[in-house]
Amino acid sequence: MANISDVAKLANVSVATVSRYLNNSGYVGKKSRAQIEEAIKQLNYTPSEVARTLTTKQSDLIGLIIPDINNPFFPELARAVEDTAFRHGYTVILCNSDEDIEKEQHYIKALSKKYVAGLILTTILDQDNYSNNLSIPIVALDRPLNVNIPTVTTDNEKGAKIGTQYLIENGVSNILCISGPKSVTSTNLRLKGFFKAVEGNNVEIHMVESKHDFQTAEQLTYETLQAHPEIDGIFAFSDASAIGALKAAHRLGLKVPEQLQIVGFDGIQMGKVVTPSLTTVAQDIYKLGERATQILIEQIEGKSTNSFSEQIEPQLLIRETTKERGPL
Amino acid sequence: MANISDVAKLANVSVATVSRYLNNSGYVGKKSRAQIEEAIKQLNYTPSEVARTLTTKQSDLIGLIIPDINNPFFPELARAVEDTAFRHGYTVILCNSDEDIEKEQHYIKALSKKYVAGLILTTILDQDNYSNNLSIPIVALDRPLNVNIPTVTTDNEKGAKIGTQYLIENGVSNILCISGPKSVTSTNLRLKGFFKAVEGNNVEIHMVESKHDFQTAEQLTYETLQAHPEIDGIFAFSDASAIGALKAAHRLGLKVPEQLQIVGFDGIQMGKVVTPSLTTVAQDIYKLGERATQILIEQIEGKSTNSFSEQIEPQLLIRETTKERGPL
Repeated sequence: MANISDVAKLANVSVATVSRYLNNSGYVGKKSRAQIEEAIKQLNYTPSEVARTLTTKQSDLIGLIIPDINNPFFPELARAVEDTAFRHGYTVILCNSDEDIEKEQHYIKALSKKYVAGLILTTILDQDNYSNNLSIPIVALDRPLNVNIPTVTTDNEKGAKIGTQYLIENGVSNILCISGPKSVTSTNLRLKGFFKAVEGNNVEIHMVESKHDFQTAEQLTYETLQAHPEIDGIFAFSDASAIGALKAAHRLGLKVPEQLQIVGFDGIQMGKVVTPSLTTVAQDIYKLGERATQILIEQIEGKSTNSFSEQIEPQLLIRETTKERGPL
Repeated sequence: MANISDVAKLANVSVATVSRYLNNSGYVGKKSRAQIEEAIKQLNYTPSEVARTLTTKQSDLIGLIIPDINNPFFPELARAVEDTAFRHGYTVILCNSDEDIEKEQHYIKALSKKYVAGLILTTILDQDNYSNNLSIPIVALDRPLNVNIPTVTTDNEKGAKIGTQYLIENGVSNILCISGPKSVTSTNLRLKGFFKAVEGNNVEIHMVESKHDFQTAEQLTYETLQAHPEIDGIFAFSDASAIGALKAAHRLGLKVPEQLQIVGFDGIQMGKVVTPSLTTVAQDIYKLGERATQILIEQIEGKSTNSFSEQIEPQLLIRETTKERGPL
């Protein structure tokens, strides 16, 4: 049976617009109106009570606190949260904590006291330092908080393991690992996966810690590659860092992947756009945002949920910064 | 005389933190506290009444509505707004209208009714279709609204003119212009500048309209360059589009800048990271965000302002996607 999303899709308008149309509340443009009517006819759609209540929820806001708006991973994640929230009649307001604990605390306090029905938090705090004394539902996204708060993350350990393994299988014997800030839980899980992959293999490793930022990673990589020209592979804990590393390789005249292979982590759009395109451990960014939002909304609406600590599978995307594996 | 910003800078903490310290309100970490005390001593700083009132303003929120969180220009702009707002004791909440008029209207209504002291709007509406019936201060950023609303923009016409002129001066005789959505005022101003630059010069032009998005621009450029291999220069209305065009050139095996020169618009960080690095008409992103926020705060605080319609100068950044000009 067709639902309101099907109507919105066929009519090429948002669910919120269909909802306004159905409830005869708020503005719906002439063209949208005609498209919705046509879609309803084609799909033989009968609005359910659920759809009818969407409008009343339109005023409900969800707060999303992200740590770094300049790392493209987070805008892409925010889009997924927004899409899902809108489909359920909620609106998202965003705050950028800028990896600053005080800003984060300030936003949590400001939003939770007065503004939002629930909060999605990609925190910079490690999980031991967080105590939940908020009176509104909260979901941790990308970075776990603590055992009492539903959490949606990628399987970070597994992701780092398969990315590193792929470099080793491709003949890399001297790896530079560009990790993220050590204060973040996901960094430590990725470190664990990285070390599991190198364990027992005859590879030399170099470690640097970088913000997930093009320019910081570029500079660190440039310096490290100059000091250690024997490095033949890089595993970076974000695509932003990997793209910075790629730039450093270009500046040093190194051929990628012939002389230096690079694997990133995240799966942001930009990885496809750089040349050569970036091999990466892709997170399912859309699913991460979608599940976090769905779980939060279930909590806001008082539906019970057992969906604590969901882990989403990462996937290795093989592109051009790694050599093609020959037959084993 | 030292002010609170100097203290914050020297102590390497945010102004908000210094403010909390001075007012003895809210949490200030041990380390931050020691750094602030040291900075106050070193600078011989005496807190003024202005500084003392900062804390009370901490609860004031500014709303910032951006049209496309996935175009890195807007996150960079948002950072500038946040920095400035924080320096003045305000906090920013962000909404992503996703280039959707209905979402934009929804956010404006939701925020202005209940949440924020003022609103900064990078609207998708053209200026004729906007009527201001809000009861809170509002500033238009990047895209003008109408004559009664303070506006901070880059001189878009001039920017497009100097970018296009530079291509022509570098020997380009067949230009592809990748414009932005025609519904946006800044697009039309840039078109005007583009046509002024080509006028009277013996250059052939091709026009395509693209979202400011890597992949849309890449695909459009790929198709256009295949159909018109005689094109030897591209002027794109955003760096995101220019970076997509650069990818298309790589896919077609075209050498940049030898066979194809590219100039972008915006000056985002990523332009430095791609290879070859992007020549671009840089907007002063920080200043745009800073001025819009300052003007808004003046309005919120009831200080009179005559700063209507400020235009910020663009600047041509010559990097590697254009040929070096020889002696004329």
